[in-house]
Parts: sequence; C-alpha cells; structure tokens
Amino acid sequence: MEIEIATIGGYEEVGRQMTAVRAGNDIVIFDMGLNLSKVLIHDNIQTEGMHSLDLIDMGAIPDDRVMSDLEGDVQAIVPTHGHLDHIGAISKLAHRYDAPIVGTPFTIELVSGEVEEEQKFDFNNDLVKMEAGETMTIGDHGCELEFVNVTHSIIQAINPVLHTPEGAIVYGLDKRIDHTPVIGDPIDMDRFREIGREGVLCYIEDCTNANKKGRTPSENVAREHLRDVLYSMEDYDGAILASTFSSHIARVKSLIEFARDIDRTPILLGRSMETYSGTAKRIGVDFPSDVEMVGYRRSIEQTLERIMNDGKENFLPIVTGHQGEPRALLTRMARGETAFELEPGDKVVYSARVIPEPTNEGQRYQAEKLLGMQGARVYSDIHVSGHLCQEGHYTMLDALQPENIIPAHQDLGGFSGYVDLASDQGYTLGRDLHTTSNGNIIQIN
Amino acid sequence: MEIEIATIGGYEEVGRQMTAVRAGNDIVIFDMGLNLSKVLIHDNIQTEGMHSLDLIDMGAIPDDRVMSDLEGDVQAIVPTHGHLDHIGAISKLAHRYDAPIVGTPFTIELVSGEVEEEQKFDFNNDLVKMEAGETMTIGDHGCELEFVNVTHSIIQAINPVLHTPEGAIVYGLDKRIDHTPVIGDPIDMDRFREIGREGVLCYIEDCTNANKKGRTPSENVAREHLRDVLYSMEDYDGAILASTFSSHIARVKSLIEFARDIDRTPILLGRSMETYSGTAKRIGVDFPSDVEMVGYRRSIEQTLERIMNDGKENFLPIVTGHQGEPRALLTRMARGETAFELEPGDKVVYSARVIPEPTNEGQRYQAEKLLGMQGARVYSDIHVSGHLCQEGHYTMLDALQPENIIPAHQDLGGFSGYVDLASDQGYTLGRDLHTTSNGNIIQIN
Amino acid sequence: MEIEIATIGGYEEVGRQMTAVRAGNDIVIFDMGLNLSKVLIHDNIQTEGMHSLDLIDMGAIPDDRVMSDLEGDVQAIVPTHGHLDHIGAISKLAHRYDAPIVGTPFTIELVSGEVEEEQKFDFNNDLVKMEAGETMTIGDHGCELEFVNVTHSIIQAINPVLHTPEGAIVYGLDKRIDHTPVIGDPIDMDRFREIGREGVLCYIEDCTNANKKGRTPSENVAREHLRDVLYSMEDYDGAILASTFSSHIARVKSLIEFARDIDRTPILLGRSMETYSGTAKRIGVDFPSDVEMVGYRRSIEQTLERIMNDGKENFLPIVTGHQGEPRALLTRMARGETAFELEPGDKVVYSARVIPEPTNEGQRYQAEKLLGMQGARVYSDIHVSGHLCQEGHYTMLDALQPENIIPAHQDLGGFSGYVDLASDQGYTLGRDLHTTSNGNIIQIN
Amino acid sequence: MEIEIATIGGYEEVGRQMTAVRAGNDIVIFDMGLNLSKVLIHDNIQTEGMHSLDLIDMGAIPDDRVMSDLEGDVQAIVPTHGHLDHIGAISKLAHRYDAPIVGTPFTIELVSGEVEEEQKFDFNNDLVKMEAGETMTIGDHGCELEFVNVTHSIIQAINPVLHTPEGAIVYGLDKRIDHTPVIGDPIDMDRFREIGREGVLCYIEDCTNANKKGRTPSENVAREHLRDVLYSMEDYDGAILASTFSSHIARVKSLIEFARDIDRTPILLGRSMETYSGTAKRIGVDFPSDVEMVGYRRSIEQTLERIMNDGKENFLPIVTGHQGEPRALLTRMARGETAFELEPGDKVVYSARVIPEPTNEGQRYQAEKLLGMQGARVYSDIHVSGHLCQEGHYTMLDALQPENIIPAHQDLGGFSGYVDLASDQGYTLGRDLHTTSNGNIIQIN
Repeated sequence: MEIEIATIGGYEEVGRQMTAVRAGNDIVIFDMGLNLSKVLIHDNIQTEGMHSLDLIDMGAIPDDRVMSDLEGDVQAIVPTHGHLDHIGAISKLAHRYDAPIVGTPFTIELVSGEVEEEQKFDFNNDLVKMEAGETMTIGDHGCELEFVNVTHSIIQAINPVLHTPEGAIVYGLDKRIDHTPVIGDPIDMDRFREIGREGVLCYIEDCTNANKKGRTPSENVAREHLRDVLYSMEDYDGAILASTFSSHIARVKSLIEFARDIDRTPILLGRSMETYSGTAKRIGVDFPSDVEMVGYRRSIEQTLERIMNDGKENFLPIVTGHQGEPRALLTRMARGETAFELEPGDKVVYSARVIPEPTNEGQRYQAEKLLGMQGARVYSDIHVSGHLCQEGHYTMLDALQPENIIPAHQDLGGFSGYVDLASDQGYTLGRDLHTTSNGNIIQIN
Repeated sequence: MEIEIATIGGYEEVGRQMTAVRAGNDIVIFDMGLNLSKVLIHDNIQTEGMHSLDLIDMGAIPDDRVMSDLEGDVQAIVPTHGHLDHIGAISKLAHRYDAPIVGTPFTIELVSGEVEEEQKFDFNNDLVKMEAGETMTIGDHGCELEFVNVTHSIIQAINPVLHTPEGAIVYGLDKRIDHTPVIGDPIDMDRFREIGREGVLCYIEDCTNANKKGRTPSENVAREHLRDVLYSMEDYDGAILASTFSSHIARVKSLIEFARDIDRTPILLGRSMETYSGTAKRIGVDFPSDVEMVGYRRSIEQTLERIMNDGKENFLPIVTGHQGEPRALLTRMARGETAFELEPGDKVVYSARVIPEPTNEGQRYQAEKLLGMQGARVYSDIHVSGHLCQEGHYTMLDALQPENIIPAHQDLGGFSGYVDLASDQGYTLGRDLHTTSNGNIIQIN
Repeated sequence: MEIEIATIGGYEEVGRQMTAVRAGNDIVIFDMGLNLSKVLIHDNIQTEGMHSLDLIDMGAIPDDRVMSDLEGDVQAIVPTHGHLDHIGAISKLAHRYDAPIVGTPFTIELVSGEVEEEQKFDFNNDLVKMEAGETMTIGDHGCELEFVNVTHSIIQAINPVLHTPEGAIVYGLDKRIDHTPVIGDPIDMDRFREIGREGVLCYIEDCTNANKKGRTPSENVAREHLRDVLYSMEDYDGAILASTFSSHIARVKSLIEFARDIDRTPILLGRSMETYSGTAKRIGVDFPSDVEMVGYRRSIEQTLERIMNDGKENFLPIVTGHQGEPRALLTRMARGETAFELEPGDKVVYSARVIPEPTNEGQRYQAEKLLGMQGARVYSDIHVSGHLCQEGHYTMLDALQPENIIPAHQDLGGFSGYVDLASDQGYTLGRDLHTTSNGNIIQIN
Repeated sequence: MEIEIATIGGYEEVGRQMTAVRAGNDIVIFDMGLNLSKVLIHDNIQTEGMHSLDLIDMGAIPDDRVMSDLEGDVQAIVPTHGHLDHIGAISKLAHRYDAPIVGTPFTIELVSGEVEEEQKFDFNNDLVKMEAGETMTIGDHGCELEFVNVTHSIIQAINPVLHTPEGAIVYGLDKRIDHTPVIGDPIDMDRFREIGREGVLCYIEDCTNANKKGRTPSENVAREHLRDVLYSMEDYDGAILASTFSSHIARVKSLIEFARDIDRTPILLGRSMETYSGTAKRIGVDFPSDVEMVGYRRSIEQTLERIMNDGKENFLPIVTGHQGEPRALLTRMARGETAFELEPGDKVVYSARVIPEPTNEGQRYQAEKLLGMQGARVYSDIHVSGHLCQEGHYTMLDALQPENIIPAHQDLGGFSGYVDLASDQGYTLGRDLHTTSNGNIIQIN
C-alpha cells in the first residue's frame, strides 16, 4: 500500500496547520487551521464573509489545492484539539470534502461554534465525537484511526494515529509530556511505547519549541506557581484581576479555585472566556460548574458596575486581554474605559506568556504601562508552554522509534533544533528525516 | 540618640556586603562578605594566606577603614546568613573588633568552618548562636537586636533589626517572601508588619533583583518543578546526575527525596556539598540524616568507581559544578576525567541558574558542550531566585512603612528599579531614599 | 555668589528636559522640552489646546512649579537645539517668564514654528538669535552666557555655558564629539579645554548613552555607510525609498546628494520633512537649496502620482515614517494606501534606528512586514547616535575637569554607567557627583 | 554529463568546509578546512602530530570518506581563500589525492606555511598559483575552472566557478559584495552577471549571515569608522593598542596608516600577525612594506621593553588577542605579564567583533575586565563582517539566476533565513533548493 503525506500548511510557520495522509485510496486530513497574525496585520478584516481563496492568498489558511494531487478519497477530517491554528479553517475548507469531522467532544463543540459563524460557505460535514483511547475504521483496506490521549494547553487534545498495513502514522501535533495535567488524564506514554513496538512508519512532530532546551514543565508546575502568586495576595483588600488564554480550561479552573481559596468570587468576563469555559462546563469536564460567565459587552459593563458596588475586594475577575490586544477587556480596563476603577496597589496577574513577536510585545507593553499609570501591580508569565521542548522530543523518539520523521508546526529555523536532535539519534536529513515546506507531498514507502 | 549608617561594602556590587549601624555609642556590624569574582579573575590566588589590605585593594573584601570615622564601640558582628558574600571576610576583618559574631546556628557553624581555614590572622571573637525570633541587648542605652525569620536560598537566614530609642533599623539582606519554604518557617511577615507599626527609622533593602518584575516564587515552586523533572525520568535506566548550590540545603533535600521516590540512592559528592549538608545534618534541621556525603577527591573517585560497579542506574549523584567551574566535579565528569562513565541518554539536572556574567556563561556553556559530546541530556534552570523581585519590595515597603530607605546589594544600575518603585510610593531621592556607595556614612536623624 | 541648580525635568527620563541655574539673583533656564511618549500612549490627544497643568500631570512637560523656590529673575530661556524634548514645552511654559528665548538661528526658527501652533497660551517672549561662539551678558552681576559649538543629530546645536564669578556652569545636553559632522563646524573641544582650564564649577551631562561602551562614531561614518548602501543600488531600476529623522538635516543632505549621485531625483515628502528641511534651507545652511519638498497630504498624493507616471526608477523619495508610526507616509505606502506602488525588489532604506521601546519596535516590525508582503527589500539601521557614549564622557571629563557633575537626560538606571565612569575618575556620589531627580534644587557652592 | 556535488564538511557548522563537484569523471574539491572550536574545547591538544581519523572523530576536519562514493579523479583541490576553516585540513587530507592545490598567490603561500608545520603526514601535492580572472582546464571533457574575484575579510579571496558542459557550478564561499575593499579589486559583479546569463546549473552559497537583515557594509565603512576612532585619540599622550584578525590584511593596513597619521609608529606583534602580514608583504600586495613585525615571544618582549624605553606614546602596537584568547599577547598585557605597562587613560582598540559563542564572550569579557582594572579605555567592534547578509544574497541570486542552490557554511538554523529568501524568489525546498548535511551527495541533473 502506498503511503503519501501531503504537508499542506504549518510547515513554514506556526499556524494554519493542515496535513493529509494517503494510505492506498484512503485519505485522512489532520487539522485545518488559521494563521491569525496574517489576518490581524491588515486593518479591520472580517474573515467570516471572506472567500477561502482570498484567505489562502493572504497566507491565513492552508492552500489545500495540493489535495488534487493525492489520488484517493478523504475519509475523515481530524482536528487534534480546539485551538484556532488547528480548527480555524474548517469553516472555509471542509465543505469541499465529503467527509466527517472527527474529534474529541470538546474539540467538536468548538468546531461547531466556529462553523455557526461562517457566512460565506455552507457547512454540511458530519460532526463525529470520538474519545481518546477509541478507534475508528477508515476505508475498507485495513486502516484504523486511533486517538491517543495527550496533554496540551487545552483539554481533550489527542494525537491521532493512522494504523495502516505498512505501519502507524503518528500525527504528533500539539502536546507536551505531562503526567499531572490538572484536568484529564496524563499523556498516554504507555500506548505510545506500545505503538512504537508495533512499528511506526512515520512520525509528524510538533516543533514549536524545538529550539528550547530541557523539559516543558507540567501544568501542575504552573498551577503551583499560580497558587503561590494568588495566595501571596490573600491579605490584599483591593482589586485582583487575572487574565489567561480563554481556551486554557485547566488554567482557568486553577484561577477559579485559588480565587475561592482566598475568599474572592471568580467571574469570567469576555466573549471568548464565555465561549471556551461555557463549552467546558456544558460537556461536563472537571470544571467548576457554578462560576459566573459573562460574554456580551453590555453585560460585562453591568457586571463591572456590580463588582464596584459590591466591593471589588470580594471578586477576582478573570478577563480577556493577556496579549494586550487593543480591544480586549483588560486593555480597556487599563485605559479607564470601563466602570471598573483601578487603584494604586491593585493586582493584575497575567497567567500567560507574551507570544514572542514584536507586535504583541508592543501591545502588551502598552497595556502594562497603562495599568502602571493607575498604580496597578503587575505579575507576568505565570505560565508553562503547551509544547514539547527538546527533552520531550528525545523521549518521544525513544518511545516511538519511528522509521521516518517529519518536523512540523514551525519554519525551517524552528525545525533546526529538532533536526540536530534527530540527527544525533541517527536520523539523516533527506533520507528518513524530512524537512519540508507547505504544499509538498512526501512518499514514505 | 544619633543614628549613623556606614555603607561599607556591597553598595557598588553584589558581593562583599558590610554595613555598620551606630546608635549613640553602640555599633552593630551587619555582614562581612567576600566578592569571589574579584578573586577568581586572577589566576591561582589563594586567599587563605593573604593580608586583608591586599584583598581590600583587589576589591575582594570590604574596605572597613571607614569604621574609624564612626565614634563608638562595636558590640556585635551579625552575619545574616551563611553565604560567602556575607560571611567570607569575617576571617580577614573580624579580629580587628572586640565583639562577638552573632548568628543563627547554621550560620555560626559555617563561620566557624571559614575561620578554621584562615592562615594569616588569629581569630578570637566569640561565636554566639541566636535563633530567629530571639533578641539580645546591645550596649547600655536601650538598644535591642532582634532576629526576624526570613526565607532565602540558604536555611536559617534572618533579617536583623536593631531597635533603638529612635526607631527600628531593619537590615533587609537577603531574602524573598516565601510562605512555603520547604525547610524552616515561612517568612515572618506578621512581625515585619508589627515592627512597621512600631516605627521603622530606616530600612536597608536587598536590591539584587530590583530590576525584575513580579514576585519571586516560593521554594515550593522550584520543588514542584524539580519533582516534575525527576519523576519524568522515573523509567530511565542509565545515569542521572544533579547539581545545585551546595549551600542550598532545601534544594539538596528535595533532590535527595525525589531521588528516593524514583528508587535511586542519592549521594552528595564534592567538598562544599559535604561542608554545607554535613553542617545541616549536624545541627539537626529537617534534613535527611542518612544520606551519604563524600568530600575528598580520592574518596569521591572511589565512590564513583563503586557506583559504576553497582550500576549507575541505582544512584543519583548530587555533585558540585553547577556553574561549569573548570575544576568542579561535574565539569571533570564531563571531561571524562573521573571513573564515572556517561552514556548517550544519561541525564544531567542543573537545579541552578547560571549567574549572569560572561565568565560563568562561557564556562557553563563549555561544560554542557562536553556533556553533550558524550550524549548526555541536560535539564537546566530548575530554580527560583532567593531574592525579592519588585512585588516583594512593594510588599515589604507596605509592611514596614520606613521613614528612610537605603538600597543595597547592587550597584547604582541595579538600584534603579528599586528607586523607581520607592519613588512611586512617595519616597524622594536624596531626602528619605538614600542611594549611596561603598565607604559612606549616612546620618539618619 | 550663591549658585543653585534646579533639575526640573529630564532627570528621570529621556524627554521633557528643563534645568534652571541661579547665580545670585539671575536665573537662566536651559531647555523646555516635551516627553512625546507620554502623549502618544493616550489615544487621540491634541496637545495644542491643552493646559500646561494637565500636561504636567501626564508627565508630558516639566513641572516648573519648583521655580518658585528659586529666588531671582529669569534672564533667559535657552534651548540648546531644536529637538522636541528640548523645545516642545516652550509654547506651554515660557509665557510665565519675562525673559527672551535665546538660541541659534535654526533652533529659534523651530521654536517660532512651535509657538505659532499653540492655541491655549499667548506667547510674547522675545526670540533672540545667537551664534555658536558668541556670548551675552546675563544680569548685572558679572554673568556671561556663551554658546560653545557642539555636534548632534540636528544642526546648530550648542552647549550653553554660564560664566559666573564662581566658575563656569556647563550645560552639556545634547551632543556627541564629532570632528567631521557633514554640516557645520566640528565640536569645539579647544574651547571646552580652555573653559576647563579657567575652572568649571559644575557640568551637567547628557547621559543618554552612558551605559554604552566606546565612542559614538562621527556623522561622517554614517554618511559613508549610507553612501555604501545607496551606491550598491546604483543599477537597480525600480523604486528606492528612504526615511530618516526629519530634523536630521545632515542626514537628509547626504540622502539628497547620494540620490543624485546614482541619478535619481530626491524629493522630500511629509509634513515634518518640509518643516525641518524648509527651515534649514531658509536660514541658509549648507543644504541643497534646489530640492523639492512636499508637506501637505493632498500634495504628497499628487507628487506620488507624478512619480509613478514619470517612472519611479527616476526618483528617490525621502519620506517620514522611520519608526513605523501608523499614520506616517512610509507606513501608509506599506499598506498600499497611496498612489505609490511597490514591487518585488524595490528598496527601502531606514537611515534611522528604532528607538528602543516595545511600542516603536512593534510598529516598525509591522511596517517592515507590510513592506515585505509587497516584495520590498529593507535596509535598516544606517545610522549613528547623536549622543556621547562612555569614551566621549571620559574625554569631556578630561577636558573640563569640573568640580561638580550632574548626570541628566536619563533615569537612574541610565545614569549608572556614567556614575561608574565618574567614580573611576575620582568623583564621589553625594559629594561632587550629584544624581538627582525631577524637581530638586542642588546647592553647588 | 553527470554532475554530482558531495557536501562533505561545513554543512552543519561554520568551519571545516569541504565540497567536491564531480562533472563526469572529473572531480574538483573546494576547500579543506578546520573547525578550530572542536579542537580548543579539549585541553592542550596539538593537532600537528594527530592522525586525520582522530580529527575527523572530533569533528575538527571534514570526514572525506564519502569521496569513495564519487566515481572519478580529483583534478584539483581549490582553497578559496586563506582562512583556517578553508585551508586548515589540507595538511591532513590533501595527501590522499593526486591533485594540485590551486589558489591565489596569497592563499597558496598560507597553505605552504600550514603544511610545513605538519608532523604526521607527508605532503607532496603541487602548489599552483592562479589569479582572479584566470582559468584552468580541468580534465579532458570540456571543464574549465575560473577564479572570479570576490571580497572578503582576507585578501585574494575568489569564488571558483567550474564551467561544465551542463552549465556553471559556482562555489560562493566566502564573500561580501564590496565595491570599495581598501586592498584589491572590487567584487567582479559584472562577471557574475555574465556567468548568470551563460547559465548557472548550481550555486553553493555562503550562509554565515543568512539570518541577518540588510547589506554587509564595505571594508571602507569599517575603515572610516576606524579612522574616526583613531583620529579622535590624536591628542592622547599615552599608550594606544589595537588588535584585529591577523589575517585581515586590509584592516591591518588601515591600522598602520592611521597610526602614522596620528604620528605613531605601528608595530605588528604576535606570531600570527607576523605570519599573515609578512606573507602579504612578501607577495607584494598593496601593503606598507616598511612596518616592523615581531613574531617570537622573546623578541616581542624585547620590543615591548624598547617601546617602554622610547616612550609608549610614540607607538601603536598592533597585537594578537582580539577574542580574549588566554595566551594571546593582548590578554597577557592585560594581566601585566609583559614589559608593557598600561596606565589609566590608555586606549585599547578592538577592530574585531567577538565571535558570538559563550566561550569567546567569556574570555573577551575577562580580558576587558583586566584591561579596565589597569585603567585602560576600551573601544570595541570597529568592524564589518566579511560575509553577505540577506540583501547580498538577494543580489547574488538576481545576478546568477541559478537553476539549483545549495546553502552552505552554517547549520540548518543558519540556513533558514536563506531558505526563506530563496523561497520568496521562487525556489522550492527539495526541488531546486537543497538543504543538506555533511556527507551527502546531491545529483544535480
């Protein structure tokens, strides 16, 4: 059986991930993501009504025209988790394929929300929920799709494995190796080792942090760090605000719990806060079901007024704006544009890292400056990455022992640390270690 | 009563701390430290036999000749904790003063070890142990010396407070605010707030990290980070080595415990490992009393041979050399100069940060390169600082409300973040906020 | 005669410079500047109609209320050169003082332009032009004001020296030591050395780059660098654009000349380009009088259309926008908002350095990204600083041998390199080396 | 005719360059270099007596065993210029090939010096001098070797071009595009453009600086910068020292000339200074023939004594040690180990950049610290790189329009900027843009 891998998007950038694997006549697509920075650099673009070709030209979504070179039928579209760089192009591209979207429940719920907002294209693909640990038959020639549980900065992330008669294709985006992930099960390293023993034909790896040394800490380390920060504010009698990635349910959960530990009522504020946490609550993961969530601008304003009236020292608003986005809630609070009044000594906790790009750094700098002008005290970088660093890559290679490797989720400079590591482990560039770019098709066997 | 503060050393550098407070006729000296980098830049200098004046000329120890301008009698010499930059000049300078050395038991034991090695000067000062929370009368005019418990990267650190009729002088070197310090009690913030209410005439602050934002995490955060790293190696069947600051007893304790948790026998190797941990064990702090410690070069070599014979996968040697020091054990292991054989996949954990100075960075880089050439996998920076960052400084000012502040333990550039913060809190440079340099005397009232 | 120096603004920042020197009853004010970043962090503020007190509260202009503590009459207000951080508050503050504005012709012309736009306050101070090398009597007690020629990133910069019976007060802002400044005379080091021999009571120094090692290169080095860049494009047959600081007349002159050397017509485009270069042309400095300048938005658009029609390969537009300012011409060109069409291979030369602050860095990054999306090739950092680095400071101290020094034009962290240097030369902090902050008065004798 | 390119060394590092081109049965080897850092990380290794296989194992010289997979006869070994990373392995590897060494006169002289010191292997290859612009027939099947003049940080650098019936193979290591190179002719861009029009089958490019934006300045820019620095010291009446790369003849020439311009006698001191400058003088390039050069340790010491006796203010010693190498002359002077006495105010000019690697940075830091402890004033980074930055790469692609490209002289991370640039110009990774590693053979047609 011929195995081909089309590296469609996310092989020259972090963002707009899309990879297709053909095993004989059966094709599975992994991820269909958006590169948001390619949208935001333009002023005032609304993607909902845009045509996919325009978004492809902008570099915002994967250029899936290479799919016509793959001979076979798409049997499934498999988003690995709910981040936009993995699901954000489904509403623009999936309608071209007669195949269901298969994902974990949380991911499918988020996909569902995304396609509801689409204005240009009709969306008729089936949405199929499958849990980590489960498998599904693909086509009629002996292929199976398995979801292996992994750990990432969003819940219910999986690594899909396509078992073919030629060996397993492991699609390794996105994960870290976390044995204490706060929500959900630890990464299933036993299963990876087992698959390794069964034989891995190809491993596609998440190289986001491949140039970073060491091991990515567990979410539990971030949790203890965050606990240390919030508990240290226990005696403070003014405002405490926190912000984090809205999709980072485990982190939001920790914030909620620690807020209560220090006798404050947590409230989630901001549209995306409500979207992600509301979804988590609805599907019944281990998430505080009794937390208030407010998403609409007007309701947020009313809530902030209520907080001010009741005494802001009794609350811990968890808000959007961790990157200093000009229109996000925390930035508007920093500008004094809301009913919430900051006073000298008030605390602002960024449980997030600035995504290292000058635009973000400039915006976040401004937000912190504005907060500082009101006397607020800022705590930054209470965070751990969701992606493997080099020792995680080493561990994965050791577990899977793949015959072929394809670095992904970076550009060539980002792959370089991974290539060095894999070369040290005996892989050879151009032979069994395939650095590639968007739009290529790699013959694996 | 006249209060004067002589800022003798450590006001233009991190290192060789020394400060004298005169209250009327009674003088207390806080710290007598060594600036080790001023020694090491010269080849092959042995300080044990050197005269203090030569070491003063080199900038290695405080120039205490300004003491002759202070009218009064030295009643006590008070090292705040056992780091060399606070006790390393006692053997060279204390003999000039007819006063006891007063410190916590662990500190006094370390001072005792230091003066035993001195070859040039006789040392006849009394060594007096005093616990955190205790007080001692100083002179006959109503002064009291109190030890307030603080938390730092060494156990039994205190902040001495000289209570005078004019108010308290709080000597704030070195600490972080840690509520979960792994060994010993949390920082005594209640007592600081109480002293603040009683009235603080002057606060001398540890500005090591004054240009760093946020809060220094608790030792417990480093512990959880370290746990995450070592537990992730549980299944590895080769060598695991760790290195940290020998004086960092809490960290060494965590390393010992986690080694045992993953079924390895910890062994402390290296002269300073034996010195500090042996002292900790002897004075009966909460430290594993049954761990093997080996300090002499020949015994270390024999121990390494034994480890190789018994199977290195059964041990976790905790060794000196975290800064890549050319002659330290870990560096010698990296060069293949010992009986210990590293193999591809073996793990080396640096539970320490490179002290940010190009010499260290160069040496540590070389050590890691050499380890990498043998296939070792390196985990770095599993560490938290022992010094307050800006939010800790904010909290201390809020607790103490001092009338005057003197930034210390940095140079002027290092003070600048603190000056900005204190200025924002209403202090004025040159009036109640005193940036100073080595060799000055400040009239406080 | 009592000498006092009021350090009013620019002693905690780079920006809003203002210093007053009182010699007996006679006061001279040096500089009245604006801190533009304090204005720009707020959205949509127009300063022209604002009251000075509001601008003081924002930290945008100097808080000159300390002037009431200086007993004496202001005899002159002396802007050292035409940059906004030195003249930008004259329109808001000068009307309070019954004193002429005394400056070099170019500086006075720029002040004149500034006050014309003021809408809130009337401006009735005399504008007096005085050339470098000339002197003016101040008051009736033997004081003389002298302008010593210096070299900076704007033409006709001087260092004013107030000769008093007690010695000279040398106000050293802003300069580098440049023996080949492209326009105008070299820095007058002979006169500085002479003044040094006569006796300098106090030297106020420009510490902008005091933490930078080495010597600031001459403008001639930037010129040769720029020549190398532009000559290397000689054979290119598409667009070449350049941007630099509009006020940097020497640089603009070099750009004009090299444009012609490679057979292109230079055109200055943008409001501030027209203001500064137009002024330079009008007062008759060594500047190409025949270059076209276009300042108004509509005229610029027409000019760009003309350039496109005539063939952009025949022109070298010199435009505003070197910091990536969102509304500046170059940024608008990058966004495709003008008639000028960029094509792959077109060249953009930034003869400027990004002012190192995350906001600027983010904006400039975006501008370059947008240029790159159109295929433009970007050449950055063809520039030298206008401010002394450490070896320049060393040379100035050697020439002037001042009795007292006051570091200025930075915050405390920025002063630190200067304090280290001066300390190494024998000065002592708090005795003859005065680090200070805004709003202080220093008694010099 | 089959064309194959063996990428033997320097494709995973900067250092130990070696590439072989096979055209039919005829093979030409370009460069045989040394990776010095792989030697220096070990203590006390003397390479002169070592076997090539040991040096290959260390990664110090190219692993040329892949040559056995190339079917054909080596007709020439062509070092492109005299830097060690291009000629340093000739003494270890060339004897295995029955082929002459063909290079420019200066390069051949340096090769000759290298092989004289070899102790392990006999060297019998012919040394053939060929000037830039000349050609040589290779084999009997229509291949010609041409030397195109290029500009680099050493004189007489060329880019060899192997003209084959299938098109030209242009070996582009090492160069910058310099139209005013101080010594020798400008880069021959006309010839490159001509070759481009004739048809380039493959271009192997020097990617050292491929991640750096902009254009590498001309040596003339460094010269003007250096002139500015040295002229600014004209009035100084103490010592002035300078250091630069010994092999950088143009820079040494500038130093000599500017020394004389400020009325000082230049003297070249240090073994490698004598080697390179002596060679330059001997072969009659445009170099001051009357400058004194001293290479032996004892003679250097005598010369320094003479300088001290005659008055150090009359000399400008140009010495080795620009990287802070522990045993180099400048470092020994800094340690006070020579007869030369530094005094406060003495100047040290580093006309070189620290090679950006922590080991060098640590050593240079120490050297500067030691100089500073004696009061010396240090001027650093008076330098320009010898390698193309991105705009140079753009220009070369535009001139040559090659069918295939192979990035070289870096590791994969270092190639990444080049791959981005080439991709933007229409090349495709894996098709006509070949990133490779050491030991590979690429079929070009």
